[in-house]
Amino acid sequence: MHDTIIIGAGPAGLTAAVYAARKKLKTLVLSKDVGGQTIWSFGVENYLGFRLISGVELVRRFEEHVREFEVELKTDNEVTGIEQKDDYFDVHTKDEKYLGKTVVIASGKIPRKLNVPGEEKFLGRGVAYCATCDAPLFLGKDVAVIGGGNAALDAALQLSQIGKQIYVININAELGGDEITRDKIKAADNIGVLNNAQTLEISGEVFVNGIKIRDKTRGDERAIDVQGVFVEIGSVPSSDFARGLVEVNDSGEIKVNCRSETNIPGIFAAGDVTDVSAKQIIAAAGDGCKAAISAYDHLIRKK
Amino acid sequence: MHDTIIIGAGPAGLTAAVYAARKKLKTLVLSKDVGGQTIWSFGVENYLGFRLISGVELVRRFEEHVREFEVELKTDNEVTGIEQKDDYFDVHTKDEKYLGKTVVIASGKIPRKLNVPGEEKFLGRGVAYCATCDAPLFLGKDVAVIGGGNAALDAALQLSQIGKQIYVININAELGGDEITRDKIKAADNIGVLNNAQTLEISGEVFVNGIKIRDKTRGDERAIDVQGVFVEIGSVPSSDFARGLVEVNDSGEIKVNCRSETNIPGIFAAGDVTDVSAKQIIAAAGDGCKAAISAYDHLIRKK
Repeated sequence: MHDTIIIGAGPAGLTAAVYAARKKLKTLVLSKDVGGQTIWSFGVENYLGFRLISGVELVRRFEEHVREFEVELKTDNEVTGIEQKDDYFDVHTKDEKYLGKTVVIASGKIPRKLNVPGEEKFLGRGVAYCATCDAPLFLGKDVAVIGGGNAALDAALQLSQIGKQIYVININAELGGDEITRDKIKAADNIGVLNNAQTLEISGEVFVNGIKIRDKTRGDERAIDVQGVFVEIGSVPSSDFARGLVEVNDSGEIKVNCRSETNIPGIFAAGDVTDVSAKQIIAAAGDGCKAAISAYDHLIRKK
Repeated sequence: MHDTIIIGAGPAGLTAAVYAARKKLKTLVLSKDVGGQTIWSFGVENYLGFRLISGVELVRRFEEHVREFEVELKTDNEVTGIEQKDDYFDVHTKDEKYLGKTVVIASGKIPRKLNVPGEEKFLGRGVAYCATCDAPLFLGKDVAVIGGGNAALDAALQLSQIGKQIYVININAELGGDEITRDKIKAADNIGVLNNAQTLEISGEVFVNGIKIRDKTRGDERAIDVQGVFVEIGSVPSSDFARGLVEVNDSGEIKVNCRSETNIPGIFAAGDVTDVSAKQIIAAAGDGCKAAISAYDHLIRKK
């Protein structure tokens, strides 16, 4: 029986682990990986204390930090379900069951699919969801980035240093994201932005060789030759395993109050899996801290 | 006219500044100092990414980070009042007035006074409120730490490495704070804990030479010879300048929702000055991020 089981090992889960361990809670972290979406970030410059650090290096420091404490960190252990018992919870993974007096859900988000023909067929053969991971594979190639927010623009900037011509395929009339990032996109001489552009299909034979897009205002279709397609159209919360138990909003995000409490006493949540509006590393870490403190308070009250 | 004026330069204010600057807001930070209470911390081991770092060094990194951006940082500028105008705010310091379309209050807390005879008289002559700042002055001396929470225990641990005999004067029946910290207190061979002990007076001639305490259960009084007294009994929010404008709770903490919004549109707040329950560096930083994003959203909506 663990005092707390933390699901996920991104900034929220790892901060929760540090706080739980410092309060001497018997702590288990279950996660498919370490670092969550942070590891996909090319350069992080808004985590206070680090002027500029790669996502990979920041995650390395996060993990090193957590391993200072008595925390059991089980990766390759994706949670599949939570069952509420009398005064504890069963947390299921594919092969095992773990018991926790409290649960902190910090399972983050995963990339949203485009759901067009060719997307699944060419996954790993030109179609990618993580520029930081896969951009180096496209040296000298023409690449389309689907999306118009910060993630898409960040991907395009990374790819502009590696690929030949980069196309940003934006379904909206204007780009989203930060002004500072949009300025960099404008300044790059090998990035072209296509607004009002809907992606219809990803084509190819063995590997991707093009995309078909439609101009939403004029209605005409057009083919563009590319060897790579990065889908950067947001993400969906990894909350499936908790549905039916904790309350979620229309987007599937777990509803929390300012103390990181869900509707179920004993279950807390933090980070991008929740309905918090700031999907940011530092905000997730801060809320992970709050979740661990709330879990501790819950255990103390029950004693 | 600034897009946003951030009051305070602790973790909340500085994170807000980084986020505001990255969104290209014309940003002014007004503060009496840089770092807030963080600088008083001997060793921080719960800010994710740094296994163990002194408060001073963490603040140095925070400031270095903020100075990467186009942020006007005015220290020695304590804010004395805020006035709401038609669609902006006048922010007053002792000598100047600044105009901001939005305001982020991140002014933190200041140490609570004990309010006993001798406390004011011997301030700086034995009476101190910041162990990290002043502990080195008490080499080989006997020192009393008034308080029983994390801050008091942290102070006692620091002083135990410098002073001769350390007394923790705790008004409650048991120590508060984290278990891990209490264990360290027990393990230290020159720290004595007096529970149920009320501090009545700080005595001395030119410098402190003792304290008088009363046992709350037995009622008897007792004098202890010490050359130093560290008052570590919590803190009060620095919200006086905003009273009458923004809503505060009974403790004077500014009420905020989960998006760091106060009751006044255009005024946001984050960190220890607010009614958030987790008074932690990482939580303050996370909420500073949320405040800046909310300020940005407010400006966009108004455009």
